[in-house]
Amino acid sequence: MTLKTASILLAHGSSDPHWLAPFDQLLQRIRYSLSDPEARAELAYMELAEPSLQSQIRRLAEEGYDQIDVLPLFFAAGRHLRKDVPAMLDNMQLLLQQEGMHISIHLHPPIGLEPEVARAISQVVLRQLQ
Amino acid sequence: MTLKTASILLAHGSSDPHWLAPFDQLLQRIRYSLSDPEARAELAYMELAEPSLQSQIRRLAEEGYDQIDVLPLFFAAGRHLRKDVPAMLDNMQLLLQQEGMHISIHLHPPIGLEPEVARAISQVVLRQLQ
Repeated sequence: MTLKTASILLAHGSSDPHWLAPFDQLLQRIRYSLSDPEARAELAYMELAEPSLQSQIRRLAEEGYDQIDVLPLFFAAGRHLRKDVPAMLDNMQLLLQQEGMHISIHLHPPIGLEPEVARAISQVVLRQLQ
Repeated sequence: MTLKTASILLAHGSSDPHWLAPFDQLLQRIRYSLSDPEARAELAYMELAEPSLQSQIRRLAEEGYDQIDVLPLFFAAGRHLRKDVPAMLDNMQLLLQQEGMHISIHLHPPIGLEPEVARAISQVVLRQLQ
């Protein structure tokens, strides 16, 4: 049996809609560029905005996804990504398991630490400095 | 008279040293790559960590810099960048002016909205999705 996998882009969240808009644009851009018609990408916020990570995981589990990749749109891993999110994912996994949904969740490193993104940031800063 | 310009990379800040470390690495990487020996780059945090933006601006003003570019290492512009930081920069500028230091401060758009960075983020996400 093949696992049915979905990805959730996780942003911090804010009560300010101006802050949220670029994340929605990023999701649209990514969905537009996905060549695999089966690929599934969603967006969630850790706090201060909806949809929450919990609600997106539940929705995907109820749709039959059994593997979820969480990709944090963060510059670095602080307390949120090292403690709060893993604890929340463990709780969510257990809760769904009690309801008969067995899902495996993988929390990726923050996108800002990916060499490609870190390089782009340095390049833009260097250009602005010179 | 030529203006003496410095740049401050502005990150949100966190009480978690794990979150702060990559920003220090970014600053080192940028300083190492600067070809102009006169170029000056510093790092500051908006909250929860030192050095603060105010203290870095004061330090540069006291060293004789009269133009400061603030480059926000943020994904998007929310309340912090649209309200708190501009108000703080205005106050700082006025305070220094009263002390006889006339500096001009320019707040740039968040780095995450730069096309090059946004593209790198999409590419990394797309690769992880496929």
